[in-house]
Amino acid sequence: MSTAWTRKDLLTIRELNRIDIELILDTGRIFKNLLADSGKKSTSLEGHTVVNLFVEPSTRTRTSFELAAKRLGADVVSIDSNSSSFRKGETLKDTGQVLEAMNADFIILRHSAAGAPQFLAERLDTHLVNAGDGAHEHPTQALLDAFTMHERLGEKRSWKDLHVVICGDILFSRVARSNVWALTKLGARVTLVGPTTLVPEIFSELGVKITHDLDSVLPDADVIMLLRIQHERQRRSFFPSVGEYVSLFGLNMTRFKKCKPDVLIMHPGPVNRGIEIASELADGPNSTILDQVKNGLAIRMAVLHLLGGNNAK
Amino acid sequence: MSTAWTRKDLLTIRELNRIDIELILDTGRIFKNLLADSGKKSTSLEGHTVVNLFVEPSTRTRTSFELAAKRLGADVVSIDSNSSSFRKGETLKDTGQVLEAMNADFIILRHSAAGAPQFLAERLDTHLVNAGDGAHEHPTQALLDAFTMHERLGEKRSWKDLHVVICGDILFSRVARSNVWALTKLGARVTLVGPTTLVPEIFSELGVKITHDLDSVLPDADVIMLLRIQHERQRRSFFPSVGEYVSLFGLNMTRFKKCKPDVLIMHPGPVNRGIEIASELADGPNSTILDQVKNGLAIRMAVLHLLGGNNAK
Amino acid sequence: MSTAWTRKDLLTIRELNRIDIELILDTGRIFKNLLADSGKKSTSLEGHTVVNLFVEPSTRTRTSFELAAKRLGADVVSIDSNSSSFRKGETLKDTGQVLEAMNADFIILRHSAAGAPQFLAERLDTHLVNAGDGAHEHPTQALLDAFTMHERLGEKRSWKDLHVVICGDILFSRVARSNVWALTKLGARVTLVGPTTLVPEIFSELGVKITHDLDSVLPDADVIMLLRIQHERQRRSFFPSVGEYVSLFGLNMTRFKKCKPDVLIMHPGPVNRGIEIASELADGPNSTILDQVKNGLAIRMAVLHLLGGNNAK
Repeated sequence: MSTAWTRKDLLTIRELNRIDIELILDTGRIFKNLLADSGKKSTSLEGHTVVNLFVEPSTRTRTSFELAAKRLGADVVSIDSNSSSFRKGETLKDTGQVLEAMNADFIILRHSAAGAPQFLAERLDTHLVNAGDGAHEHPTQALLDAFTMHERLGEKRSWKDLHVVICGDILFSRVARSNVWALTKLGARVTLVGPTTLVPEIFSELGVKITHDLDSVLPDADVIMLLRIQHERQRRSFFPSVGEYVSLFGLNMTRFKKCKPDVLIMHPGPVNRGIEIASELADGPNSTILDQVKNGLAIRMAVLHLLGGNNAK
Repeated sequence: MSTAWTRKDLLTIRELNRIDIELILDTGRIFKNLLADSGKKSTSLEGHTVVNLFVEPSTRTRTSFELAAKRLGADVVSIDSNSSSFRKGETLKDTGQVLEAMNADFIILRHSAAGAPQFLAERLDTHLVNAGDGAHEHPTQALLDAFTMHERLGEKRSWKDLHVVICGDILFSRVARSNVWALTKLGARVTLVGPTTLVPEIFSELGVKITHDLDSVLPDADVIMLLRIQHERQRRSFFPSVGEYVSLFGLNMTRFKKCKPDVLIMHPGPVNRGIEIASELADGPNSTILDQVKNGLAIRMAVLHLLGGNNAK
Repeated sequence: MSTAWTRKDLLTIRELNRIDIELILDTGRIFKNLLADSGKKSTSLEGHTVVNLFVEPSTRTRTSFELAAKRLGADVVSIDSNSSSFRKGETLKDTGQVLEAMNADFIILRHSAAGAPQFLAERLDTHLVNAGDGAHEHPTQALLDAFTMHERLGEKRSWKDLHVVICGDILFSRVARSNVWALTKLGARVTLVGPTTLVPEIFSELGVKITHDLDSVLPDADVIMLLRIQHERQRRSFFPSVGEYVSLFGLNMTRFKKCKPDVLIMHPGPVNRGIEIASELADGPNSTILDQVKNGLAIRMAVLHLLGGNNAK
């Protein structure tokens, strides 16, 4: 399908160049067509073994990778964080080596520690895919987001004419970090918005704008990407109350009216309805939430195929 | 295989007509033959994705659906109630739409709320199969029960000559409700037996007889279906003690001697030996307990095939 | 592939004879070659169903069996100890019969009770594989260990010239028991080492030597197999402290220098680094730890194939 891909692993967007990213997006388009053809499967990973190692739980991302791998014909085994016996008394390196010895061709790793996938990738021949590491990166999420933007707006605007506003808990968000890398490499303009405690000035060094006033950037935004407020992890000390957060940074109908009519409203899910976004907007025609999920399957198929599929190179 | 099936979902027995039920039973027979042919698989669901969404846990039913789907060639992903991340902050509708966006062709839903499968089915194009919703319905259980009765007694008695006694916790039993609908639609006579607290008079409106005296109905029964006493859910206030329940409604050898020699003893499992049924009867020749499990696989294959299999129509 | 195999189940090494063991090892070699051929799968279990019933949890062994079965083309369902609903109110026999009724061709059973696999095997037509029963046996572990010894030393030494030292918690170790049976049947010399509380004299009746002094047996050992100290199960009363255990029975560089240069260092994993074995030895050229994991896959494929694979006989 291509002669350009040479990497063993997908660890970060930061390490990719624009050509890598566009190759993944183009390959994703091929697999999206395949998925639309009901009942069609690829044989790209036939005879290959994919292990989902989710040390930090995520049924949604795990299911997406599992379905992507199965649709490519792979054998899939999922190991979740409840499966403590795999890790009892074992280092991450030992666990990785055991999985490699069990003939795993791919390890999809979700881990609470930033850098865990990189650490393992350097020590194994197995293909490593980062499915989210701490607050560091979540590369397939950024790829599926870019895919969705291009699919919905690509005919009208080139990347350099695109202005993407990312709003919310930037500080702790691996989704935001990966998106910043992907979008700036592709040439889009990015503005980060949120409370001062969650959007530190230092992010401007990444080539993006920073603001703490959502309303001021709405009229010029082509895409508004809302991040999930993580009640469970979130320390209340970062903003006074959920109510105040909603009043300043929640996307509601009043704010929507200030936006371009064809603005894309994106969210990595799961959505807290009425907090980051009003229910009617989440379900409205500008929302891409379900497109993102759908495209995630195609992008993950593309990544697995490029990294180690039969006839990938 | 058939031209008669037109429904997208299997939600309740109540909504089916006799022709629907008989079509499922006939199709089940075809798949039972396929299962008997060791190593034979169907390609009916090749390239299709089946998601088991078991918000209320049940390894037994989940395993049966999983094996049925795999035997039809489907890719299967199981999501259980421990996988809280899928539902955290998400409505059931959102979860369903995400699974649909992930290309799920079928969702098998077990849920503690009556009506949950119906609610989801109305909002998705995905095929929905009710695997038990609260105390409402458990349609595949009633279908496999009817299949088992017909297989064992069909040569000797037509449905209209069949008298089925269902004994136990009728009030909270989705198995009882689905069986009442299936059996009355097929033309069988049904008698419900149990403590007055668990078998309210109102059930007689469904076209069945009510009694609180098991011994009086034994001589005329062709089938005795015992329901599981759910210790974990059961509120003791509904009957004085397990011992008293056993003495009045447990099927033991003394009671068995009052029955027709070829009476079928049915139980949806898992059995509380010595409570609903004496061990020797559960393992005896009149028992259909393992037939029911075996037929469950065939019936679930039939349902999945009819709803959305390749060449099903 | 062979005409010699006649057993329905693999329950213990004790019941096997030398020819059985060598047949499994020879068949394992064929499957190891197949595994080395990336992307190649066997069709030996196509159309067959394998159920992993792990009443005592073990992600590592469960994953190995799951991958082995999938690589043979089987449909696999895994049921773990969290899945309480399968066993609630049910005897092990009932659970086994239900799985058999669900068309399970193989049950892989891990159970905390010694003899549980035997109990079930006598009551079912389904093939039973013991994946570890209490402190009794773990036959596939001993087979993969013998496979690994032969692969690494077989050219240089015949079984009767091989001296294997097994060190650690012999009393509670099913790995030790199965290895003693396998190695003595193959003709190797075996010495058991450990604290007196964990290596009772009665083991000498099995045809092995007993000692409590590791240092004295190192120079003559061809293989040193270290057992895992089970912190979680271990009652402290069996040895004064972990530190004292390490000083007497931990394999470190000082002890390693007393060994033959080509001594094999084996461990069933997961390793407690710095306790049973120094990290540099676990990762060094004499260590077979990852070979054992790799060979486990091949051996489990061989066992499943011989017990019930297509064209196995």
